[in-house]
Amino acid sequence: MTLVISNEHVQRVLDTGALGAPAIIDAIEASYRDLAAGNAPYAPRRGVSVPVADSHRHAGFRDERFVFGTMEGAVQTTGYFAIRLKLDVSYGLEDPTTGAKTHEKYCMEPGTYCGLILLVDANTAEPLALLNDGIVQHLRVAATNALAARYMANPEAGVLGIYGSGGMARSHASLFALVRPLREIRVYSPTRAHRELFASEMEEELGIPVHAVESPELLPDGCDMVTCCTDSNLSVVLPEFIRPGMFFSSVTGHEVADEAADRIDAVVLHQTIESSTILTYAAGEDRIGPDGGIVPIAHPPAAAYSRGPRVRGTLAQLVSGQIPGRTSEGEVNYFYNNIGSGIQFAAIAGEAYQAVRRAGIAHEIPTDWLTQKIRD
Amino acid sequence: MTLVISNEHVQRVLDTGALGAPAIIDAIEASYRDLAAGNAPYAPRRGVSVPVADSHRHAGFRDERFVFGTMEGAVQTTGYFAIRLKLDVSYGLEDPTTGAKTHEKYCMEPGTYCGLILLVDANTAEPLALLNDGIVQHLRVAATNALAARYMANPEAGVLGIYGSGGMARSHASLFALVRPLREIRVYSPTRAHRELFASEMEEELGIPVHAVESPELLPDGCDMVTCCTDSNLSVVLPEFIRPGMFFSSVTGHEVADEAADRIDAVVLHQTIESSTILTYAAGEDRIGPDGGIVPIAHPPAAAYSRGPRVRGTLAQLVSGQIPGRTSEGEVNYFYNNIGSGIQFAAIAGEAYQAVRRAGIAHEIPTDWLTQKIRD
Repeated sequence: MTLVISNEHVQRVLDTGALGAPAIIDAIEASYRDLAAGNAPYAPRRGVSVPVADSHRHAGFRDERFVFGTMEGAVQTTGYFAIRLKLDVSYGLEDPTTGAKTHEKYCMEPGTYCGLILLVDANTAEPLALLNDGIVQHLRVAATNALAARYMANPEAGVLGIYGSGGMARSHASLFALVRPLREIRVYSPTRAHRELFASEMEEELGIPVHAVESPELLPDGCDMVTCCTDSNLSVVLPEFIRPGMFFSSVTGHEVADEAADRIDAVVLHQTIESSTILTYAAGEDRIGPDGGIVPIAHPPAAAYSRGPRVRGTLAQLVSGQIPGRTSEGEVNYFYNNIGSGIQFAAIAGEAYQAVRRAGIAHEIPTDWLTQKIRD
Repeated sequence: MTLVISNEHVQRVLDTGALGAPAIIDAIEASYRDLAAGNAPYAPRRGVSVPVADSHRHAGFRDERFVFGTMEGAVQTTGYFAIRLKLDVSYGLEDPTTGAKTHEKYCMEPGTYCGLILLVDANTAEPLALLNDGIVQHLRVAATNALAARYMANPEAGVLGIYGSGGMARSHASLFALVRPLREIRVYSPTRAHRELFASEMEEELGIPVHAVESPELLPDGCDMVTCCTDSNLSVVLPEFIRPGMFFSSVTGHEVADEAADRIDAVVLHQTIESSTILTYAAGEDRIGPDGGIVPIAHPPAAAYSRGPRVRGTLAQLVSGQIPGRTSEGEVNYFYNNIGSGIQFAAIAGEAYQAVRRAGIAHEIPTDWLTQKIRD
C-alpha cells in the first residue's frame, strides 16, 4: 500500500514522540554529510506560472496566477527520494483602509492550500507515500537552522530571540532547544495576540520562560541567537540589532538587512550560489518567444551574504568538518538559509513516513494504482 | 474527489470512442498554438539519479540506479497544468549468448514500471487526477508526430512505413491514419512474431492492408511517410532509405542517422535547442563537488538536425503559420522530435481526464487528503 499522510498524522507522531525531534535534526545532518560526500543529488528549485482565466478571477484579488513550484532530491545513505510539489493560485491583496499590500495564495478556495511530497524508495523506486507538506516544511527549515546553530552558535548560548509566531517559529523554538541549553526565549511578531499565545504555549511546551516583546528593537538585547521566521517582504534584523557573539538564521533571503552585512563576521550558506536560484517559467509576459524559447526568471540570492570574503562555505562543508562553524566567542555569524532543497524533504519525509507507518494511522491506496505494466 | 486513472481506464474510453483520436490531435495542436502565443509555459526536462544500495542489487544487472525524470507545463487556453513523474530503477543487461547489451528498467520488480501524471486545474490549483502515463505517453508522442505530418507530409501521402511494433507504433498508426488518406502501412521490427502480430491487429483495426517486411531496407521503397517508433540506440533510417518527397518523424533523437542529413531538405524541431536538453543531476560520480555544487549532465540534441540552414523552426511556429510545412512535392522533410515537453501531458491528460470522468470509471480519493490548512 502507498500511504497518504496528512499533517494531522504527522502531528500525532510528533505528539506521541514516535517521531522524535532529535531524529529529525540527525536526519538532516546525515543528508548534508551525504551531500558533502557526493551522495545526495538534487535539482535546483523551479516553477511554472500561468495567469488564471478571467472567468475564475476573484474581485479584489490582483494578478491571480497559478504558480507551481517544485524541488527534488535523493539521499543515498537512507535510500529516500522526495519531490515536493506546491500547487497554489497566488494573488496580491491591498487593505482598503491601510493600503498595506500582502501576497496571498490558495488552492481551490481561500484558506486551503496544496503542498505535496511524493516519497520514493530510492533502492526499489517504490512510491511509498504522498504527504501534506505543511508540518514537514516547518520541520525541514527549523531542523536545518537548528543544525547550523549546533555548529555556529556559542556553546553556552542560552537566550533565543525569534521574529515570527507562526508554525515555523514554533518548530524553530522546539528544535533550537535541542541543540543549545536554552534558559529563555523572546518572541516578537506584529500582532499582540499572536505573540502572546506563542509565549504561553511554548512556555508550557518547553518548560522555560518565553517572553513576548512589544516592539522589534526590544528583542535582540541579551539574545545569543536570533532566528527569523517571518513571511515579511521587509528586512527584520537591522544593523543596530547586532551584538557581539550572536548567531543569526533566517527562513527567507531578505530577513537580515543587507545594510547589516558590515557587522557580520562570517556567513555560511545553505546552498551554493549556483544552486540557490529559483527558476520560474512564466507565460503571457513575453517570457516565451514565438519560437517557443523559454526565458527563466531567476531570483538570485542577496549578494551581500552570498559572495565575498565573509562567506565561509556551505552547510555541507560545515557538517563534514571542511570549514569551521565559529572561530571566537565574539564572532557574529549568520546562517544564510538562501533557498530550500529537495534533500531536506527526502530526509524529513523519510523519518515521518517511518513513524506514521509504524503507528498504522495513515490513509492507504493500493500501490498498483500507481504502477503500470507499460514501459515508457 | 481526485481521480486515480489507470492505463485500463484510458484504454476503455479510447475503445468506446469517449476519448476520440481527432480530439487528441486537436488538443496537441491547440497547445502548440498557445505556446506560439506565449500562453503555454514549460520547464526543461530534468532528472535526478542515484545508485541503488548494494543490498538491493540484482545479480547480472549492471549499474542499477534509481532514475527520476520529470517535465511539467501548463496550457492557458484549456486551463490544465500537468507534471509527469517517472520513477524507475534503470540497469544494463547483457545477453549471455549473443553478448547484446540492452538498457532496461523496473519499479519494485522487473515487468512493473512507474510513470505518473499529476493533472491540475490551472485556474483553481485543484489537483484533479493522478494518471498512469503509459497510454498518454504513447498518445502524446504519436499525436505530436501526426500533427507534424498534417503540416509537412504530401497531401496525398497514402503509404506509411513504421519502424517498431510496440504500443508507440500502434498509436502512430492510428493517429497518422487521421491526418492522411492512408491506403497501406508497412512495418518492420526485428522480432518476426511482433511485426506479424502488429500487422494483423492493425489491419483489423484500421481496415487497410498492413504488411510486415522481413528486413529494414525493404520498408522505405514506396513509402510517403516513415515514422520511427523504436527504443533502439542505433540509427534506423540510413541515407540510402530516403526517397524524394518523403516525410520522416522519430521518437528518439538518433533514429534518423546523422549521415542522412545531406539528403534531407528541411527540418522542423519539436522544441528549440535551448529547451531540448535533459538535465540530470547525479551523485557518486564526482558530479557533486564537496562544496555542494551540482554539475548538470546535459544530453544535447543531435547537431545534424538542430542547427544550420535546413532547420526551418519549431512545431509552435509551424502550427501558428510562421513557417511553411512543405515547399514542394519532392521536398524531403523531417520532424525532429528532439525531446518531450510537459505541455503535451497537460493537453492529452486533460482530454483523458474529461472522458474518464464522464464515464465514471476511475478510482477516487478525497481531494482533501491532498490539500491542507497550513500555508507554506
